[in-house]
Amino acid sequence: MVAHGSRREASNEEVRVLAAHLRSAVAGKFDDVESAFLELAEPSIERGIDNAVTRGAARVVVLPYFLVAGRHVATDIPAIVAAKTRQYPAIEIVLVDYFGAAPGIVDLLRSIAGSFGRS
Amino acid sequence: MVAHGSRREASNEEVRVLAAHLRSAVAGKFDDVESAFLELAEPSIERGIDNAVTRGAARVVVLPYFLVAGRHVATDIPAIVAAKTRQYPAIEIVLVDYFGAAPGIVDLLRSIAGSFGRS
Repeated sequence: MVAHGSRREASNEEVRVLAAHLRSAVAGKFDDVESAFLELAEPSIERGIDNAVTRGAARVVVLPYFLVAGRHVATDIPAIVAAKTRQYPAIEIVLVDYFGAAPGIVDLLRSIAGSFGRS
Repeated sequence: MVAHGSRREASNEEVRVLAAHLRSAVAGKFDDVESAFLELAEPSIERGIDNAVTRGAARVVVLPYFLVAGRHVATDIPAIVAAKTRQYPAIEIVLVDYFGAAPGIVDLLRSIAGSFGRS
């Protein structure tokens, strides 16, 4: 799970805690879930992929935890994944669509906003 | 629905489209849903609240479309809402917790990641 990264360490820690929750939630489908950051926090996305390979992963799924498809989602993260794919030709590295593109986003927004609207 | 705003107009447009979907989804509970931006895009959050008041809103619900509680969520947006609350004492302005704090986030991440894991 890759996020932007923040100068505010509490924000990075929030991503790490969320990755830990996701690890439990997908335990039957993934051996591990780790967080990594595009900038300003550790590990970097490159290092996160390296760590997964070092621990024996044959397949690494990269999920960009971003709301909109800015330059980071459209260009920077695909470039990193492409470079790592060249570096590790025996490893399958899958880049998933960014979080904000999920069809479930509107439902989640509705459930958040709903309780503040007219009953 | 207030987002950060981007230099990339396509990203701002993505937020506007999402706000339009949310408007349909909560049509029975809210008279309108509009997007506004902390910086780099129009309308600003201040202007978005002004617009709602001008159109006759007695109640404005501000939903920060942010994933983590950085400075913008923790400080900047509450300061804007506080200033507008002073400006419009007769209007109820409600600041909702930021999107990334929703309990449904992990479920949505699981549903996204799930199809890329072992079956």
